Amino acid sequence: MMFPMEPIGTARTPYTETAQVPKGPGTEHHAEGVLELFPQFEPGLKDIEGFSHLYVLWVFHRAQGYELEGTPPTDTRPHGVFATRSPRRPNPIGLTVVELLWREGNKLHVRGVDMLDGTPLLDIKPYLSSVSVSELRRGWLDEAEARAAEGR
Amino acid sequence: MMFPMEPIGTARTPYTETAQVPKGPGTEHHAEGVLELFPQFEPGLKDIEGFSHLYVLWVFHRAQGYELEGTPPTDTRPHGVFATRSPRRPNPIGLTVVELLWREGNKLHVRGVDMLDGTPLLDIKPYLSSVSVSELRRGWLDEAEARAAEGR
Repeated sequence: MMFPMEPIGTARTPYTETAQVPKGPGTEHHAEGVLELFPQFEPGLKDIEGFSHLYVLWVFHRAQGYELEGTPPTDTRPHGVFATRSPRRPNPIGLTVVELLWREGNKLHVRGVDMLDGTPLLDIKPYLSSVSVSELRRGWLDEAEARAAEGR
Repeated sequence: MMFPMEPIGTARTPYTETAQVPKGPGTEHHAEGVLELFPQFEPGLKDIEGFSHLYVLWVFHRAQGYELEGTPPTDTRPHGVFATRSPRRPNPIGLTVVELLWREGNKLHVRGVDMLDGTPLLDIKPYLSSVSVSELRRGWLDEAEARAAEGR
């Protein structure tokens, strides 16, 4: 059973090659970009201005195939693909939380993009709630960041 | 341009009909369920036990078509589909943050499911960071919840 997904628009970002996207321990994404919806989807943005943050679902459109275990740029050890943000996933869907700066018709100006310029967008959703930091455990990533901080 | 997505597994939840899924102002999801991956994807779960929370991407497999504006169960006023969690989206992808309780081979026991039993799963990702509550604005939803609380 296959589910076909069709882009609703395109991301405009500063990154034309994957090597330009900041990666590695402690990376924060502050780059600004534009989520440009195809004009027919603009009515779907009504009232989105009220939300400070959005989920963006998009396609890793340059990823070829997948691997179930791999070593991410944040570590020197392999992990399962579902425990990483690897683009080489069974379904190559990316997920990014962005801050909404302003809207201009069918264009959302946002901060926090980490996808390539020209990336096909699949969906935008309001970001509604947070897990409190005190509840959050980040597994191998915390360990890898600690090792990197110690220069190991 | 279409991107075909193929399920990696199935959600087991207490909900067999959409009417059973808690909805409306202030809803919190505490229901337990199981994310059951197809056996061939089990290696992709390596090291996932270290994460307290996961993103689950799934298909609203019973949704028929979409509407760009609609009135959600949390409000009496219409909003754009990208400012809501409506299942009737151009790409019917659902996104849920769950708490990982334990893993049993290819099965993840989780808390916080809000999808129907039998829902096709597309992806699982580690939940890595939170937007602080002081930064978060929730637009029409805050307003609708305030109106509901006042009985209007």
